[in-house]
Amino acid sequence: MSDAPAASGGAEPPSKNALKKAQKEKEKAEKRAAAKARELADRSKKDADDAADVSADAYGELPLCGSKDYTVTGTKRVDIADAASNEDKEITFRCWVENARVQSAKLAFLNLRQNLSTVQAVVAASDKLSKQMVKFCGSISTESTLVVTGLVKRVKEPIKSASITDFEIHVQKLFIEAKAEIPLPLQVSDAERPLPNDTAVDEQTQDEGGERPLVSLNTRLNNRTLDLRAKINQSIFVIKSGVCALFQEFLSKRGFVLVHTPKILGAASEGGANVFELKYFGRPAYLAQSPQFYKQMLIASRFQKVMEIGPVFRAENSNTARHLTEFTGLDLEMEFQENYHEVMGVLEDLMLFIFGELNARYRKETELVRGVYHVDEFKLPESGKVPRIPFQEGIKMLREAGEELGDYDDLTTPQEKRLGALVLEKYNTDFYTLDQFPLAIRPAYTMPSPVDPALSNSYDMFMRGQEICSGAQRIHDSTLLAEQMRKHDPPIDPTGAGTKDYVECFKYGCPPHAGGGFGLERIVQFWLGLPNIRMTSLFPRDPQRVVP
Amino acid sequence: MSDAPAASGGAEPPSKNALKKAQKEKEKAEKRAAAKARELADRSKKDADDAADVSADAYGELPLCGSKDYTVTGTKRVDIADAASNEDKEITFRCWVENARVQSAKLAFLNLRQNLSTVQAVVAASDKLSKQMVKFCGSISTESTLVVTGLVKRVKEPIKSASITDFEIHVQKLFIEAKAEIPLPLQVSDAERPLPNDTAVDEQTQDEGGERPLVSLNTRLNNRTLDLRAKINQSIFVIKSGVCALFQEFLSKRGFVLVHTPKILGAASEGGANVFELKYFGRPAYLAQSPQFYKQMLIASRFQKVMEIGPVFRAENSNTARHLTEFTGLDLEMEFQENYHEVMGVLEDLMLFIFGELNARYRKETELVRGVYHVDEFKLPESGKVPRIPFQEGIKMLREAGEELGDYDDLTTPQEKRLGALVLEKYNTDFYTLDQFPLAIRPAYTMPSPVDPALSNSYDMFMRGQEICSGAQRIHDSTLLAEQMRKHDPPIDPTGAGTKDYVECFKYGCPPHAGGGFGLERIVQFWLGLPNIRMTSLFPRDPQRVVP
Repeated sequence: MSDAPAASGGAEPPSKNALKKAQKEKEKAEKRAAAKARELADRSKKDADDAADVSADAYGELPLCGSKDYTVTGTKRVDIADAASNEDKEITFRCWVENARVQSAKLAFLNLRQNLSTVQAVVAASDKLSKQMVKFCGSISTESTLVVTGLVKRVKEPIKSASITDFEIHVQKLFIEAKAEIPLPLQVSDAERPLPNDTAVDEQTQDEGGERPLVSLNTRLNNRTLDLRAKINQSIFVIKSGVCALFQEFLSKRGFVLVHTPKILGAASEGGANVFELKYFGRPAYLAQSPQFYKQMLIASRFQKVMEIGPVFRAENSNTARHLTEFTGLDLEMEFQENYHEVMGVLEDLMLFIFGELNARYRKETELVRGVYHVDEFKLPESGKVPRIPFQEGIKMLREAGEELGDYDDLTTPQEKRLGALVLEKYNTDFYTLDQFPLAIRPAYTMPSPVDPALSNSYDMFMRGQEICSGAQRIHDSTLLAEQMRKHDPPIDPTGAGTKDYVECFKYGCPPHAGGGFGLERIVQFWLGLPNIRMTSLFPRDPQRVVP
Repeated sequence: MSDAPAASGGAEPPSKNALKKAQKEKEKAEKRAAAKARELADRSKKDADDAADVSADAYGELPLCGSKDYTVTGTKRVDIADAASNEDKEITFRCWVENARVQSAKLAFLNLRQNLSTVQAVVAASDKLSKQMVKFCGSISTESTLVVTGLVKRVKEPIKSASITDFEIHVQKLFIEAKAEIPLPLQVSDAERPLPNDTAVDEQTQDEGGERPLVSLNTRLNNRTLDLRAKINQSIFVIKSGVCALFQEFLSKRGFVLVHTPKILGAASEGGANVFELKYFGRPAYLAQSPQFYKQMLIASRFQKVMEIGPVFRAENSNTARHLTEFTGLDLEMEFQENYHEVMGVLEDLMLFIFGELNARYRKETELVRGVYHVDEFKLPESGKVPRIPFQEGIKMLREAGEELGDYDDLTTPQEKRLGALVLEKYNTDFYTLDQFPLAIRPAYTMPSPVDPALSNSYDMFMRGQEICSGAQRIHDSTLLAEQMRKHDPPIDPTGAGTKDYVECFKYGCPPHAGGGFGLERIVQFWLGLPNIRMTSLFPRDPQRVVP
């Protein structure tokens, strides 16, 4: 076992091609080495001209980090958020430049960032630090990555321009590790500011109170890798990662098995509309619109409780602020013993756990994001009990508020939002459940209600008046399922290529079960009160956008 | 807030269509109720004929669990694995039938299963339990789902046919919750047995020592929902879920953010071969072959450490025992400070953690699966240090063992296996890393080695001599990256639609970084020593198979 690659030994000669290639590579390497030598010679000449540079070894551009050798200096790299615990100590850290400015021939300031923290750095000329170094440091391009060594010093007046207000860094060494080209196609400081009011996809840049114009969502998304550097975006995706982790943490403690069901299907299954078709070794195949059939088939396979986190594909030509063609589904399905409300209880407890832990573990990020858009706190039921409102009761509330709709009509998006406001008023919560939806507006596999055959054992969950989850008890009997599929509008053939295996799996003793599917991006969007779902997808996909 | 759906009240009448539909549904419900009444009448007549049935209320088929009302009995359901702690107590549990047999008019036995546990149940006629009930219980079809109430009784002789050997259940009540049709297209007991020796996709059923013929992989996969009920399969997927959880547990403690990168791409990126094409609103789009470009773009976006668990699509026409067209990628990418070996250290520690915890938390499942195939323990380095073998050293070892190959040749699969055996012999470990691969056989974005320009800062990880991970330091400089892409074989256009955003993101100060991608199914396959990777995918996809 060795930590260093061996010299290319061995009895057999390498192949001719490999030798040729190796020879070529070596020649190039020699050329590079010669160029480097010339560069060094030039520099030492410049140094000689410029004999006063006492800091020659303390600044400059590092060669491309290609792991030149297998030794490491091992210098400890510090998190600048820990500055306070390093007062008066010398620390070394990687960071990037928010801005750099030369104040005078002897003084330069830099705002340095690392994650969500920023700190001020001072480069002051002295007998140990040259004016050349001050000039170099003060003129580094924004967004360049640096390795900085300096002393952590307490300041008398709090620094307003940085998140670390009580300390600054007195720079001793400063090297550019990766220089950012200028100009940047998008300023990260612009990405920190809100979107223009019109957050539709084709919005135009707008003015807001005489400041710099707000940058449109399209411009941001076209330059997404710079856009994502903004603290607001870093925070959004730390929260998104957190929601996934909390989802799994809660459910795995309750015995759920994480599964991965296929995204490529041999036949379109759930009705066939809004499905992406692909070429699969000379025949058509389709992208999964949800793991619905598969998670139920796993319950039929005795998995008892399954969860899945995975991409969901919808070929729906919806260009709204809350639709994506590819999003992340948080799915679960489980047996219940007597009543599907057992499963609703699990879903409600799951969401209360996620909200509670987001408040506890991700408060800083949550506040940072909500602050930009002046969004209210997310209200949770004080009793700890989530309002579980029968659909018919919801209809009644809407009618009493002046809405006109039938007993078995689906709610429009404005009606959903309206109902959310009414529920907030009555129950003081931004999170609630609607139960017992009309059967006709639910998928064919939904268990009809025993209370009223026009209703069903199905439910949706809402955050700030918008749907984040749809779920139901599913039919676990093959005969009834086939019957319901046939009389569905539009009818579905239970013996079709995309349905046969699914329908038949319920012939062999499947227990009663229910489940639900959450849209991860929607949970994040409505938790934070963001105006557009695209902000919660790293590289969003919609009917117009498949890049970057 | 109410737990019961309200009666369909409200001032407005429902729509005409809804009313019609509701009317129809009500008529059907009435018909069903009438049929049920007839059935009950028939039954009570039969009961009268059969006046001696003192157990009439203690057995039978339950009506379809459609959550008839919103009250629940709340009877506690017990895990039969906890039988020992319920000695002499009455317990109620859901289970399914492994087999049922009538011994005599007064005695029936059932083997009942719940998860990985099986228990024997006795139905014995007495003055409280009718012969009719004995007959009913003894003739229930295999795989039916039951709800059973009975006493837990210690037995004198250990029961060999069940996993619970010291206790049996004296049945008091037994109801069929979901009856399995007969015949089953696949016996679960057959699914518990090994695959025939030839595990290729088109293998034929074979005999083994005069027993029942072994069932082919194809037959099993065609009946996958029954196949998955086998304990061996349940164990495989509990372990797979565990590997995912352990991957995330280890990495999130180290600050990795879980990300979800797009699976639909506007242009084929990494070379363009082996990509599935799909129709995207009238233009072509492609399925991601890996999250490679995106996870690097996120490092350029200052995410520092990212991980992803998601589907990976390969349109490769490989019909082998270790290829799938859709598998689960465990990906990670991170900044490093000085040397890419920092990242290799993380990858090695990650895998040692996963192996250690699989041994600790999933020993039962691991032993169950390995037992079926007589697979050896997975050997880990005793020193805790993973052998990190330079590629050239590996070549040397192979040559010394008689293999013929050039210094810069890629290893064939048999050579990889051979090397695995040599490493096992020398270092006594089934897990090791090869480092510093020839540049020419790696992707264009791989950082060339400073030691020998024909080598690269790249590595693969192996389990039982088979590759499970490929990784490298990546080029984080836009100019060098474009240069390497152009001279790659075949050349890649760095300004193309699928590469431009990727190449350009390295213009703005990206830190040095490295990472790797694991195939989840391969980790599970080689951990357990399984003959075919399809066994580790719930619903495997290969060039021939897209169903179920």
